[in-house]
Amino acid sequence: MTQVYFDHNATTAVDDAVLEAMLPYFRESYGNASSGHSLGLAARRAVNLAREQVAQAVGVKPAQVIFTSGGSEANNLFIRGVAESLKPAAVVISAIEHPCIRRPAEELARKRSEQWQLHQLAVDASGEINMAEVATLLAGVKPVMVSAMLANNETGVIQAVAPIADVARAHGAWMHTDAVQAFGKIPVDFRELGVHAMTLSAHKIYGPKGAAALIIDPRLPIKPLIYGGGQEEGLRSGTENVPAIVGFGAACELAVSRVEALAAHTGALREHLEQGLLAMGATVFGQGAARLPNTCYFALPGIEGDTLVVRLDKAGFAVASGAACSSATPGKSHVLEAMHVTPVLARCAVRVSFGAGNTIAEVDAFLATVQRVVDQLKSMSVVLGA
Amino acid sequence: MTQVYFDHNATTAVDDAVLEAMLPYFRESYGNASSGHSLGLAARRAVNLAREQVAQAVGVKPAQVIFTSGGSEANNLFIRGVAESLKPAAVVISAIEHPCIRRPAEELARKRSEQWQLHQLAVDASGEINMAEVATLLAGVKPVMVSAMLANNETGVIQAVAPIADVARAHGAWMHTDAVQAFGKIPVDFRELGVHAMTLSAHKIYGPKGAAALIIDPRLPIKPLIYGGGQEEGLRSGTENVPAIVGFGAACELAVSRVEALAAHTGALREHLEQGLLAMGATVFGQGAARLPNTCYFALPGIEGDTLVVRLDKAGFAVASGAACSSATPGKSHVLEAMHVTPVLARCAVRVSFGAGNTIAEVDAFLATVQRVVDQLKSMSVVLGA
Repeated sequence: MTQVYFDHNATTAVDDAVLEAMLPYFRESYGNASSGHSLGLAARRAVNLAREQVAQAVGVKPAQVIFTSGGSEANNLFIRGVAESLKPAAVVISAIEHPCIRRPAEELARKRSEQWQLHQLAVDASGEINMAEVATLLAGVKPVMVSAMLANNETGVIQAVAPIADVARAHGAWMHTDAVQAFGKIPVDFRELGVHAMTLSAHKIYGPKGAAALIIDPRLPIKPLIYGGGQEEGLRSGTENVPAIVGFGAACELAVSRVEALAAHTGALREHLEQGLLAMGATVFGQGAARLPNTCYFALPGIEGDTLVVRLDKAGFAVASGAACSSATPGKSHVLEAMHVTPVLARCAVRVSFGAGNTIAEVDAFLATVQRVVDQLKSMSVVLGA
Repeated sequence: MTQVYFDHNATTAVDDAVLEAMLPYFRESYGNASSGHSLGLAARRAVNLAREQVAQAVGVKPAQVIFTSGGSEANNLFIRGVAESLKPAAVVISAIEHPCIRRPAEELARKRSEQWQLHQLAVDASGEINMAEVATLLAGVKPVMVSAMLANNETGVIQAVAPIADVARAHGAWMHTDAVQAFGKIPVDFRELGVHAMTLSAHKIYGPKGAAALIIDPRLPIKPLIYGGGQEEGLRSGTENVPAIVGFGAACELAVSRVEALAAHTGALREHLEQGLLAMGATVFGQGAARLPNTCYFALPGIEGDTLVVRLDKAGFAVASGAACSSATPGKSHVLEAMHVTPVLARCAVRVSFGAGNTIAEVDAFLATVQRVVDQLKSMSVVLGA
């Protein structure tokens, strides 16, 4: 049975054209991009072309692109790399950041030998960072670093990064945004956001796993996470993953070329889905907020999310009960907690995230399957709180 | 013109069977290994199989394998991750370590807020770590961490890691070896080496760029370099690069199956090469020491290495004038410096590193080309010191 894939916020299949672009770099142009001979220079040119493609996609210069192995590494590079360049002070993140921002920030604050203080920006029930608090908190704690994601991976809620960046810059803080989920789903422009650093990742935009970037303002003080041969202007040592970087570049071109069409396509699917789910009595988290067009994070009261995901999987639909990379702490969403969703309802959360290949017919089949599974579960009395 | 590739210590082409193993994970089994649905579980099984393949190749249990994005990351994870778990004290590395060991160790010692001291083990003119100094230095400085590579990337000289590990353990130090260059060229067994940690990399053994591992003793105190979703038992967060990890596993199986045959094949090529080079008056660095069978690091006095590399490249041969990843500091080899090679001779260094596909006919053609290029350069009087 072919699985219907509704989990594009977790990862995407590599686009056919992207894989085609990558293939020559495994067995033909396989040189080390740091080698001085022809094969090395060919690899170097491929990396440089990809750097231009990534830069162009978000409106920066190629020299502002620092390639990393993934979004988690890029986010850690920002938090840890900037912290190592500054005197310990306050760092502010939002309460709904991905663990790869939250955890390194917590580690900073945990170190007794240093004096970092971690503060978190609250979100409203809608899943949006509370702008009134941004002004008071930043004025109060005078952070040197601020990180707020452009769109949340669970709810898809788009954050007001540009206004937050204005406040951060006014207080002299270095501002970062994790744009991993937003990029490719909505237009993203580094300068319009007013940030000093931004994270992008390939495998969320139909590119390969193993390539990502931290985009930086040249003035950003930052030290490497990985020291060594001095690649990426000394900011990220290690042999360049040439095929993955080439695929990332190709995926960026693809993303930019179809971002509006993809948004319209997935937005229509989401609209159809949510009409059906709301008719079943579902709660849609962040429903009133501006959201990524492809993302629907919902709960059917009384139906546990994990159970629904397993049943839907057996019926041929791949959806998520939370963020894929939070499997270490199953059943608990810090995002819904920050939105003051009750623990009972939070346990019912399921995320659908559409992609380029999905169809209305798939959504119809999904809705019918959800209804059937819910009826089965209700008849078996395995309903929470029943 | 097809390039004859004599630079396998820089990187290798992905083996055909390895690429075949990887391909399904780009567009078919493309799930996120942390996802709970079928596609995620298929990716998880593939990662687990690769973990078993890597473990088996060096005689450890799968749980001892921490996948990283590359050897540089794995080496940084050891140095920085273990340092963060210990009270600052002495750390000892050899003078010929790769920059991805040397640089993070230097950074540790540079931090004013902490009290790390860095000491380096000298090597003899043969390129071997001086064992008499190992005993005195370790007894004197009482290090908590020691790192000595199993084989040097430039000279190919194999180091006496097991005896060094004996001394390190006797002093209570945590012992690491960077086995990136040795693995696949000579048999490598974690327990026989007596180390607590070991670095392996896929792209030096006909696997893909983007996958590597730090193999650890379960008792090793270590903290992550990259925090986040908690992958790799919390020691390396970030979405697993499934295709690259699958390729790494397949490459490990291939490496183990043919290590003796590959050693015999490349050893014969090297023997033939060195006879020819010595007849031309070449110096072979580390000639008297036990070396990786595939590596020949030589100098033709008076012929600058960079010039020879460029001329040979034009003639269709890819060789290196030094380590590929040290291009940031061209023309200077810290390895030759540690061996007390004169700067004038060090400037003439060229590295040939053979691989599975090379032939005796290629070596003959190479020797003829070297002779021709040397004659040309001599006739043009662009000979150093002439």
